[in-house]
Amino acid sequence: MAAETRLLANAIRALAMDAVQAANSGHPGMPMGMADVATVLWTEHLKHDPADPAWHDRDRFVLSAGHGSMLIYALLHLTGYAQPTMDDIRNFRQLSSPCAGHPENFLLPGVEATTGPLGQGVAMAVGMAIAERHLNAEFGDDLVDHRTWVIAGDGCLMEGVNHEAAGLAGHLGLGRLNVLWDDNRITIDGATDLSTSEDIAARYRAYGWHVAQCDGHDFASIRAALAEAAADPRPSLVACRTIIGWGAPNKQGTSATHGAALGVDEVAAARKQLVWDSEPFDIPQPILDAWRAAGRRGAGAHEAWRTRLAASPKREELVRRMEGRLPADTGLAAHLDSLAATPQKIATRKASEMALEAINAAIPETLGGSADLTGSNNTKTKAQKPLTKNDYSGRYIYYGIREFGMAAAMNGMALHGGVIPYGGTFLVFADYCRPAIRLSALQQVRAIYVMTHDSIGLGEDGPTHQPVEHLMSLRMIPNLAVYRPADAVETAECWALSLARADGPSLLALTRQNLPQLRTGRSDNLCARGAYRLRGAGAARRVVLVATGSEVEVAVKTAEALEGQGIGADVVSMPCWSLFDAQDAAYRADLLPADALIVSIEAGTTLGWERYTGRHGLNIGLDRFGASAPAEDLFRRFGFTAEAIVPQVIAALENKGDQ
Amino acid sequence: MAAETRLLANAIRALAMDAVQAANSGHPGMPMGMADVATVLWTEHLKHDPADPAWHDRDRFVLSAGHGSMLIYALLHLTGYAQPTMDDIRNFRQLSSPCAGHPENFLLPGVEATTGPLGQGVAMAVGMAIAERHLNAEFGDDLVDHRTWVIAGDGCLMEGVNHEAAGLAGHLGLGRLNVLWDDNRITIDGATDLSTSEDIAARYRAYGWHVAQCDGHDFASIRAALAEAAADPRPSLVACRTIIGWGAPNKQGTSATHGAALGVDEVAAARKQLVWDSEPFDIPQPILDAWRAAGRRGAGAHEAWRTRLAASPKREELVRRMEGRLPADTGLAAHLDSLAATPQKIATRKASEMALEAINAAIPETLGGSADLTGSNNTKTKAQKPLTKNDYSGRYIYYGIREFGMAAAMNGMALHGGVIPYGGTFLVFADYCRPAIRLSALQQVRAIYVMTHDSIGLGEDGPTHQPVEHLMSLRMIPNLAVYRPADAVETAECWALSLARADGPSLLALTRQNLPQLRTGRSDNLCARGAYRLRGAGAARRVVLVATGSEVEVAVKTAEALEGQGIGADVVSMPCWSLFDAQDAAYRADLLPADALIVSIEAGTTLGWERYTGRHGLNIGLDRFGASAPAEDLFRRFGFTAEAIVPQVIAALENKGDQ
Repeated sequence: MAAETRLLANAIRALAMDAVQAANSGHPGMPMGMADVATVLWTEHLKHDPADPAWHDRDRFVLSAGHGSMLIYALLHLTGYAQPTMDDIRNFRQLSSPCAGHPENFLLPGVEATTGPLGQGVAMAVGMAIAERHLNAEFGDDLVDHRTWVIAGDGCLMEGVNHEAAGLAGHLGLGRLNVLWDDNRITIDGATDLSTSEDIAARYRAYGWHVAQCDGHDFASIRAALAEAAADPRPSLVACRTIIGWGAPNKQGTSATHGAALGVDEVAAARKQLVWDSEPFDIPQPILDAWRAAGRRGAGAHEAWRTRLAASPKREELVRRMEGRLPADTGLAAHLDSLAATPQKIATRKASEMALEAINAAIPETLGGSADLTGSNNTKTKAQKPLTKNDYSGRYIYYGIREFGMAAAMNGMALHGGVIPYGGTFLVFADYCRPAIRLSALQQVRAIYVMTHDSIGLGEDGPTHQPVEHLMSLRMIPNLAVYRPADAVETAECWALSLARADGPSLLALTRQNLPQLRTGRSDNLCARGAYRLRGAGAARRVVLVATGSEVEVAVKTAEALEGQGIGADVVSMPCWSLFDAQDAAYRADLLPADALIVSIEAGTTLGWERYTGRHGLNIGLDRFGASAPAEDLFRRFGFTAEAIVPQVIAALENKGDQ
Repeated sequence: MAAETRLLANAIRALAMDAVQAANSGHPGMPMGMADVATVLWTEHLKHDPADPAWHDRDRFVLSAGHGSMLIYALLHLTGYAQPTMDDIRNFRQLSSPCAGHPENFLLPGVEATTGPLGQGVAMAVGMAIAERHLNAEFGDDLVDHRTWVIAGDGCLMEGVNHEAAGLAGHLGLGRLNVLWDDNRITIDGATDLSTSEDIAARYRAYGWHVAQCDGHDFASIRAALAEAAADPRPSLVACRTIIGWGAPNKQGTSATHGAALGVDEVAAARKQLVWDSEPFDIPQPILDAWRAAGRRGAGAHEAWRTRLAASPKREELVRRMEGRLPADTGLAAHLDSLAATPQKIATRKASEMALEAINAAIPETLGGSADLTGSNNTKTKAQKPLTKNDYSGRYIYYGIREFGMAAAMNGMALHGGVIPYGGTFLVFADYCRPAIRLSALQQVRAIYVMTHDSIGLGEDGPTHQPVEHLMSLRMIPNLAVYRPADAVETAECWALSLARADGPSLLALTRQNLPQLRTGRSDNLCARGAYRLRGAGAARRVVLVATGSEVEVAVKTAEALEGQGIGADVVSMPCWSLFDAQDAAYRADLLPADALIVSIEAGTTLGWERYTGRHGLNIGLDRFGASAPAEDLFRRFGFTAEAIVPQVIAALENKGDQ
């Protein structure tokens, strides 16, 4: 049996070294080192059905060490997934192939997460394990009862995010999470002892994890360790002592196997060492048959699950949630009616809380939280109970001071499906979780970031806490919808858009300070077009003031002052750039006509606003760090008042006339 | 003695609660909770001299839990620093005061680091401790022999960066680093057990640290723990069990004291509890005298050090380094001569390595490293030995897979002085260390980031590793100089500018792929103006192509193709936006004249380029995620070729004619 398992594992090794050699690019060392462990996991433990990669109750497998992508491509192919085909694998790392350099969830079913940015796979797996327990609490063992498995490398465990994720997992007692650590003692720069002397097992025990160990090339040892991990009620770290590039006789055990093709000679030597006679990309039929048989292992469990699902009164609800369809009523229409009836002068963070009260009552799949700023982010609604180790049905997570861990966990929850995660921190700390926000966007998942204290308007905490460049730099992340609503109505509209956006993340930038409700009456969702004319000019229009968030109020006052001097000024509120840029040219030209002076007003960097104001427009912004003082003092100090802006507009009109 | 020490500590408590109450904003809980520990540290251990906050051999003190800023303001005032004055403290958190919401190194001597973004204080302290040991190895115990002390909160220890920093400190055996952990079991959201169950002491032991514990309100216990920490050869974590807001009878021990004024009634109750009768901001003379006497404690040691320094043959070199003055010859002039004589077609990362060979030979204070990408970042020069636990004289640090920890440590080194840190990673992982890059800029320190693989040009690793929005979003960080050189000459020039920039950080974005040397002959440093005309139009100029880095070559080819069709085209290379924006209007208008079509070419987000190209200019860029394929395929796929660009330029010229 051990010998046979080794043959199966060697099929992974052969594919890994052949594909990397063909591309002359890639990472053979990890797949070859972890092939034995991965083979035991995928043939004896992993609950999945290659015939249906979307089976809701499948185990989740995350290759956190994503550079070893050939490992998962080999596993998917060998166990019988429709993709990747052997041609896909032959084209590893080429434009046409779904076998990208790192695994991409949007290219291949069975790839549960995009990995490669180290540490985040582990952290996303924590989110998946949370989602699983939460849905289990709501839908029961019959419908939701699966594990989350991770393969992680030394890099994953050195990155800071693993500390945040492992701490959270230990706290929440996520016993169905098992991380298999490829303990090969090699990093890119050389031996791990160049840079670390840590006792990783002791550290994980300190988080409340169970730690098992195995010889990663001894099948009895691997089996014992995986069984131990599966049985233990705590999250488990399995330290798999391996040799990187196992099978490549002259290079194994060295960083030379990590990130480059082995070379023709070494591949030939490895074939000899592994007694692997077949041609590149050719798997001997008995070995392929054994793999395919292992791939069919889960079909019975899947069928039994289907039967239970069909009989369950919760079927429709589970399927609705897992398919990411919102309930017909999100609660927001009634909330907007109420705002029309009773305008609110409140901070948009508070407006967000009011919207959430409606949303959380109407949409059972929202799962909120904050990185220890619950009262400041206004992310917790009254009925939300905490999700705890003893009660996973709670819908609020106290993430602790772990912004990156929170964001990565949100990605994992969204990837798992069945929940819509939202989480809060200060906007300035978007920097702390930016790598995960980028992965939300790349992975096309519905994670919703609630980021408050969105400008110098936060006041006294000073420049370390005042975002300046953040809003604009977030707008640049492809596929991230960034919203900065101006009042309670826009906040509700932006929440509606965020929830409806199933194929990408949203980020709401919200104020600490109170803002008047600028929109009265009831209308369509005006934020849906990204920008709209809030006030038309009274006098003949010479100026268009474009602003976002808290500066829309400033724009309105500026327009009033200009109109007082006979200068016609429109006010355009632009809560979402990417939505505005997607409008047709006529709409855009109508809002921002070529013959008017376009003036931007936003308490952040001006770089970027020239997209709308042009080379000779006027940008009222902040291109330096803020300062510590009460918010009103800062707005005055940095010129975000009608008094300061009006003379600049008049001067710009005069200059424009000269040109 | 204990009673007297308590009185001293109560002076801190009174100032903290009074200043926060006056501002009606701030964080009284931490200063009140840690007042006893801080008093012992500052009156019995800390080696400093309030008369000279810049004493090179002083102990460094970092308040990592920066929200407790009143603690350090009180300590500086009480021990006799010239600033802050009592008026400054009265104006806590007001525009005019150096007593900002969080401590800012650029506002107050004695504040060694700007803190507040949690976890980074600890990580900067690691860098300070590295710099101290490194300089000790070079200058000896007589001149460099001090400790680094940190006060950190639960938040600091939950943030991922503390994992990276503590792992590095344990590995390097930084025994003179002592972290006093304010173990008050309270975070903003409530008790720490809402979000964590970790055994922090066990975790730090796993990193190779020594852990001591004390009752943070029992002076004998505090003294024993600090003595134990000071004596132990390993870095020490001192768990100080404290009560947040100690002294406020109705609120102490709760999160209510964390981030808000106590209120008039509770301040009055605390005065009663502390038996503190004096008026707000009034310190009884005997207590002030005792503090001032403690402040003079270090004067003798300082004087003895001055005497040793005066007698040392290493005096001039130490002072030069600590004052941040470069040697007269940086080695780069000779290197540029050699490039003029022998042009190089190499990747700019390789060009950076060549520049570093010259720099590291000429400038002994450079201290390099990489976050486990040494061979890819080309950051290690031949003569550099590693800095290790057994040999701190090494000038290269294997940081491990710890981008954030590296960047924060670099800040600490630069703040310490005497070294010029540079460190490498991939540009895409700027996101992983962005919070520290921002603090480099805010703190105005000379940290140099070497970020390679700066576009889709990295090829097969795919979108997780290909920067798109990074370059532009880094340009938005105030006071960060971002350089993207186009060839070996520009790379050397940008290195020269980075080294000369003593009051702020620099970031070099460098290619993986080879680039031709576009500049031949020898000239002034043309990068110093941020942008310059690389090639003037042959035919009458109708187009200006502005590009950076690897796309300058594309611009040159595009210009040649346009000229072939009789369309005159300048090529402007723009390695540094912030330097270009600082030029006078005439220079800027000469390069980017109003009557030409301005076309930007950069393999990254177009948002931002409208600053130079206007609303109707043409921006050749990448506003989506990349893909996995060989670099040349990607450049073709995404249109970064003369063939793809020329027709767009011609169409834009026609449109422009229509307007």
